[in-house]
Amino acid sequence: MQKRLSADEYISGVLSGNRIILSRTITLIESQLPRDNETAQNVLEGILPYTGNSIRIGITGVPGVGKSTFIESFGKYLTSQGKKIAVLAIDPTSQRTKGSIMGDKTRMEELAHDSNAYIRPSPSGNTLGGVTNKTRETMLLCEAAGFDTIIVETVGVGQSETVVKGMVDFFLLLMLSGAGDELQGIKRGIMEMADAIAITKADGDNLQKSKNARMEYVHALHLFPPNQNQWYPPVLTCSALEKSGLGEIWKVILDYEKQMKNSGFWKSNRQEQSLSWMYAYIKQFLENHFFENESVKNNIEYISQQVLTEKILPIQAAKKLLELNK
Amino acid sequence: MQKRLSADEYISGVLSGNRIILSRTITLIESQLPRDNETAQNVLEGILPYTGNSIRIGITGVPGVGKSTFIESFGKYLTSQGKKIAVLAIDPTSQRTKGSIMGDKTRMEELAHDSNAYIRPSPSGNTLGGVTNKTRETMLLCEAAGFDTIIVETVGVGQSETVVKGMVDFFLLLMLSGAGDELQGIKRGIMEMADAIAITKADGDNLQKSKNARMEYVHALHLFPPNQNQWYPPVLTCSALEKSGLGEIWKVILDYEKQMKNSGFWKSNRQEQSLSWMYAYIKQFLENHFFENESVKNNIEYISQQVLTEKILPIQAAKKLLELNK
Repeated sequence: MQKRLSADEYISGVLSGNRIILSRTITLIESQLPRDNETAQNVLEGILPYTGNSIRIGITGVPGVGKSTFIESFGKYLTSQGKKIAVLAIDPTSQRTKGSIMGDKTRMEELAHDSNAYIRPSPSGNTLGGVTNKTRETMLLCEAAGFDTIIVETVGVGQSETVVKGMVDFFLLLMLSGAGDELQGIKRGIMEMADAIAITKADGDNLQKSKNARMEYVHALHLFPPNQNQWYPPVLTCSALEKSGLGEIWKVILDYEKQMKNSGFWKSNRQEQSLSWMYAYIKQFLENHFFENESVKNNIEYISQQVLTEKILPIQAAKKLLELNK
Repeated sequence: MQKRLSADEYISGVLSGNRIILSRTITLIESQLPRDNETAQNVLEGILPYTGNSIRIGITGVPGVGKSTFIESFGKYLTSQGKKIAVLAIDPTSQRTKGSIMGDKTRMEELAHDSNAYIRPSPSGNTLGGVTNKTRETMLLCEAAGFDTIIVETVGVGQSETVVKGMVDFFLLLMLSGAGDELQGIKRGIMEMADAIAITKADGDNLQKSKNARMEYVHALHLFPPNQNQWYPPVLTCSALEKSGLGEIWKVILDYEKQMKNSGFWKSNRQEQSLSWMYAYIKQFLENHFFENESVKNNIEYISQQVLTEKILPIQAAKKLLELNK
């Protein structure tokens, strides 16, 4: 059992870029223990002025698309450019499948040993739409610790993309060519969130297929109206194996940053995100509070059954449950 | 001022298909007056066993796509086939633009005078995602009144599509060809909700353009993975002017019904929808209750400003507001 630190000790440790303290601080803010809560809040308040100075990148794609391999190569590319990167790997399925986070960690071994990279898998747990609700705070801690590029990795099969999209500046969707589009199982709607699509494994025998897939996606994206920010998501190809296409992806991200900072969207988007998070926390709290009520817990299954068997209307069921919570 | 009816009078009036009573019952359940509330609940309980026997169709498309004209022609086609149809027209913008519902009503004049059709514009108001939260109950009342085909019309520009999608069996997206895709402004994600896309105004000079647009959308939809129910949304063309393509659209809907009833999806989808509505009502109530709290109301603007100017974190702002609600 490690000695507990004071809020000031956590803060100065994080600000000095001490990784061991950074990791312990993340564990602190992830803690469900009431006694950790106040310290965590003080730490977050203390680091707040030192946050925000990074590019926040969300990366998604179905399992098998080569996400970890891509992030490892892309991360190495970024550190070679003098960037300091933090990778927050979300794995909402980890509680069920176990080990998959460890698998990812192993696959990112080279990056994990890079002194300019920091990798932190987030446990699932008390979630906002499948993402641990502390991922956003973890991101801020990494910024305070001096990381200028934050990558939030998510699995492209759940609700977590929407949540991640709501905490990053740029959202990159990785797609695979040649697997048959229908097999990729990317959740409907995710393609439309992307600020760019990168087709992975564009090497060897797969190169031509990747180019064809690229044209298909260019065409598909053309059918969507432009984003609110007037950005037209480009489609790129890359190979983690041959380390190709990585610079092009980075250039797109830098172009995006420049355009969005010029137009003011960068800042307004972050402000809107912050406000959305405030509302999301409130709603989450209200719901948790309600559904943890003993009477509600004891009756919800029976009442749900009555709805499913059409004995009562949803609105009546809702009223009954709300009555129990009084 | 009309005499108030008893719950039993409302119920028997609705079940006998009396349109005047049906309209008054809808007004009753839409009422915000506490004294109407209990009667409304009793009426809904009374008609519940007589609901569910219709095909529920959601129709969306941006203003200008010819939604009302389409619904008028399609509705006339359906009544000519012996169907009894109810059209619930949602217009979330009506409070701002006024008159637009009346405009729609005027445009659907022929259908409005059809004795086998019933048209009811829903006022916006206390909403679940932009749709009046009584639209679902209105649909049930129409079913109890003997309507076997319910059309819920919504404007394809807001959040209302998700809500409508959650109350219907089949979701039809109307699109226009030749207006330039980028001008159609269909909200990102709506295309993916569609069980079918119909390209309107496929007549005269526009016919070839419509056929081209059809191929484009077939191609675009092909890039999405199949729905959970293994249904591949077809793309059709139609003309309300020439009354063409309407039978084909209806055939698609009947095919869908048959396939989904065979697979069990029809029923399980409705059950899932009911349960989702129960949860939605609960969440809506909890949020309304919270945000109507006086202390919360008095402080939310100041606290939001602190978030926007990065003086406090979203999670801290949420906690402050939750504290005020105690």
